Amino acid sequence: MNASKTLGEIAQRIGGKVEGDVHARVGGVASLEAAGKTQLSYFANPRYRKALLGTQALAVIAREDAPHVEGMNWIRVANPALAFAQVADWFNPRTQPPPGVDKAARIHPEACIHPSACIMANVVIEKGAVVGAHTVLFPGVFIGEGVVLGEGCWLYPNVVVMDKVEVGNRVTIYAGAVLGADGFGYVFDVEKKAHVKIPQTGVVHIEDDVEIGAGTCIDRATTGETVIGRGTKIDNLVQIGHNVHIGPLGLICGQVGIAGSTTIGAGVVLAGQVGIADHVEIGNRVMVSAQTGIGRDVEDGAQVSGYSGFRHVDWLKFMLSAHKLPELLKEVGRLKRRIEELEKEENL
Amino acid sequence: MNASKTLGEIAQRIGGKVEGDVHARVGGVASLEAAGKTQLSYFANPRYRKALLGTQALAVIAREDAPHVEGMNWIRVANPALAFAQVADWFNPRTQPPPGVDKAARIHPEACIHPSACIMANVVIEKGAVVGAHTVLFPGVFIGEGVVLGEGCWLYPNVVVMDKVEVGNRVTIYAGAVLGADGFGYVFDVEKKAHVKIPQTGVVHIEDDVEIGAGTCIDRATTGETVIGRGTKIDNLVQIGHNVHIGPLGLICGQVGIAGSTTIGAGVVLAGQVGIADHVEIGNRVMVSAQTGIGRDVEDGAQVSGYSGFRHVDWLKFMLSAHKLPELLKEVGRLKRRIEELEKEENL
Amino acid sequence: MNASKTLGEIAQRIGGKVEGDVHARVGGVASLEAAGKTQLSYFANPRYRKALLGTQALAVIAREDAPHVEGMNWIRVANPALAFAQVADWFNPRTQPPPGVDKAARIHPEACIHPSACIMANVVIEKGAVVGAHTVLFPGVFIGEGVVLGEGCWLYPNVVVMDKVEVGNRVTIYAGAVLGADGFGYVFDVEKKAHVKIPQTGVVHIEDDVEIGAGTCIDRATTGETVIGRGTKIDNLVQIGHNVHIGPLGLICGQVGIAGSTTIGAGVVLAGQVGIADHVEIGNRVMVSAQTGIGRDVEDGAQVSGYSGFRHVDWLKFMLSAHKLPELLKEVGRLKRRIEELEKEENL
Repeated sequence: MNASKTLGEIAQRIGGKVEGDVHARVGGVASLEAAGKTQLSYFANPRYRKALLGTQALAVIAREDAPHVEGMNWIRVANPALAFAQVADWFNPRTQPPPGVDKAARIHPEACIHPSACIMANVVIEKGAVVGAHTVLFPGVFIGEGVVLGEGCWLYPNVVVMDKVEVGNRVTIYAGAVLGADGFGYVFDVEKKAHVKIPQTGVVHIEDDVEIGAGTCIDRATTGETVIGRGTKIDNLVQIGHNVHIGPLGLICGQVGIAGSTTIGAGVVLAGQVGIADHVEIGNRVMVSAQTGIGRDVEDGAQVSGYSGFRHVDWLKFMLSAHKLPELLKEVGRLKRRIEELEKEENL
Repeated sequence: MNASKTLGEIAQRIGGKVEGDVHARVGGVASLEAAGKTQLSYFANPRYRKALLGTQALAVIAREDAPHVEGMNWIRVANPALAFAQVADWFNPRTQPPPGVDKAARIHPEACIHPSACIMANVVIEKGAVVGAHTVLFPGVFIGEGVVLGEGCWLYPNVVVMDKVEVGNRVTIYAGAVLGADGFGYVFDVEKKAHVKIPQTGVVHIEDDVEIGAGTCIDRATTGETVIGRGTKIDNLVQIGHNVHIGPLGLICGQVGIAGSTTIGAGVVLAGQVGIADHVEIGNRVMVSAQTGIGRDVEDGAQVSGYSGFRHVDWLKFMLSAHKLPELLKEVGRLKRRIEELEKEENL
Repeated sequence: MNASKTLGEIAQRIGGKVEGDVHARVGGVASLEAAGKTQLSYFANPRYRKALLGTQALAVIAREDAPHVEGMNWIRVANPALAFAQVADWFNPRTQPPPGVDKAARIHPEACIHPSACIMANVVIEKGAVVGAHTVLFPGVFIGEGVVLGEGCWLYPNVVVMDKVEVGNRVTIYAGAVLGADGFGYVFDVEKKAHVKIPQTGVVHIEDDVEIGAGTCIDRATTGETVIGRGTKIDNLVQIGHNVHIGPLGLICGQVGIAGSTTIGAGVVLAGQVGIADHVEIGNRVMVSAQTGIGRDVEDGAQVSGYSGFRHVDWLKFMLSAHKLPELLKEVGRLKRRIEELEKEENL
């Protein structure tokens, strides 16, 4: 799996150009700081210039304009980070476990498991569920009635997929995530003085190539679907409410919360701990700074920071000004007194 | 389970009045946008007027003053959302699974399981635990020593209930929630240079008709009890610290955090991602906006937004003003110069 | 386990001095409010003066300068909270379960389990893992390939420790926590219009005497290590990103989020729901208030509140001023008009 490869072979795989010894053998990948004499690293962000100049790496993937390093082997590419990701994947492929159903897994007779799937110990799969080719279920995974899992999915330990959730192909779900818990829907009965539950009879639909982080919760819809669009990547401990629709190619960072019935466009980036209220429409290619709270629609391409309604540029201006507010209050008091002096003299 | 019902039967069940064909048969419920020609929907919020006018639904539950729709069948009620919840529940009852203990469940001989309970595969129940009538434990649930679960509880997959936690009747706990982990209590030993753990020897007490969301954590008390009051509904990924007391009929939304020893009154609504400090007293019927941080007591009936101490009305005023602060700073600079001019001329 | 002990015995154990009946027998510990006539409590924070004056406790651990209470037995110490923690632990020791491997645990033949360890039902331990002496694994725990667990560790139900994670000695991990899920790393491929995964080939390293709360997620590094330093205590539902280094003796409260590659010094306190951006350096002994967002480096010993860049003292000043901003805007308008009047008269 980790057999060494030459710089030439690597360059060919990533469409790069070698400057140096095409026959040099690389044993693996590492960061610039940690790389040893048989390892390959990459340089993209000028922040790492110092690390580049001091690296022990055998070779570095970089653009043409990288700083000069005496005696270094280079693989020149247009996008070093992307190329490094491809090489790292080549050196560290995820090993497909042998197919089969562990004897300690509990599969309902009316579930349908592809023979090439790998079902590990203590997995429980309920009636009518379907598990696609090459899909891997780690110990403790629960698959509810009527769930459909596509091909090439990886569900890590203790993931829970509740009834009738649909998961596409090549979806990865990290440990402890929960898909299809009931959405948070109640209506208050004034007579009985109780919060009456609104049955959550909809489903969750995860499209192809989505990744869902550890501990993340995606609720089923009241009616209809909660949807995560193709190729979107969701980090850990994220909460997605019922009937939310997220478009393709999104990046949803850790501990984000999106309340029910909100729609989010394509290519949206939500930084960590962002909160979005219910029934909001977020356009395409919107970027939201960490911890921002959004309570109103946001148009395509906007950058949003701070509390609802601030555009990023305005939030920065506000934060710069905010430090000066206590002093400004005193200054205005002083100006007021000077005006009073002038007015007194004027009245004389 | 999903047998069709007539509008007349439905109206009778919810105390409504039919305007249209009492014999029309309804097959199920759906939203206004998604409903087909055999489905029932409801209209309450004017926001959905457009959806109402374009709906394909066979019938709509609504108040008398709903917009007119040609040819529509109506069931008139005072509270359409509540009535819809009751109908949705009638069409989609939660199916009680057959009673019994799965052969792959591990039950301590000194645990006491009611014969009508349903204990699924890979459940572990420890010594001295009690499980009440009709309670359902999904795969992977852990019930610790001395735990008491009431009647009609539903614990979804991989829920963990630690030792001596008490859960009332008709409590629903969604997948992955954890009740009774240790509270976060340490005291610093300056000599040994270590955080010394304060043993958390108290319990958690969940009252009747509570719902607890997926991934939510409710810690045991240092001594005494952490209490969740009757009929309170808690969303996903919420953190409740040790010795917190929450009153009845609360609504605690996703990712809220409440630190230790805080008390919360009855009927309190905490929107998403709210944070409440320790040893705070929140009164009855308080409503707290999303992402608000509360560090001081809040009186009955208050509405709180933004950072600690802002009443909602004041927070709105502040946010409206905040946009103007950078410009205000410049304006004050200009006024100062004009005053200086006036003072110069006055001194002549 | 809960056999009564005399005040004399207790005082000796904690290095305190009895004022009262050295032979009085104590049955257990409790808070001042809840303590009964055979229980011991403590007084440290003046906030609890009223509770002290009304307590039914047999004896109270306190400093010399505690308020006088007629007829009370005292154990005088310099640090009552610490002493109480030690006594509570003596009365409520964590009971070591009998060693052995449950028949329903699944242990890979090439895993190495110390004979004194306790492995409970439905635990899965993969190839090459090592479990140290006296370590306890509760039901549903997953231990991945090559994981090393030290001695005296306690992993509560459904904890997940992914491949090659290293855990030191006397580490406690509460239910549902996840160590070693993939870090959130992607690079965008413009040609293929896809977020390409950067393989996360590093590990997580947890040092001795760390505690990790329920539902908390600590991601493996891209390359290298994510490190939690010795004696650090982490609360529930915390998210620690890839390549984060946290120093020793930290206190990380509930729902904190720390993004990738950030380093945090020794003895740092992060209050609840704090968010720290990526690639930030937080010094030693920094204290961060609840809900604070940090986007820039913070020097040793700083206290930080509010949004990035506010020192605590400045944040308090800003919050006090912020209430006055709407009125300040109006006042400046009024001053402007008075200046205009003066200027008009000046021009006459």
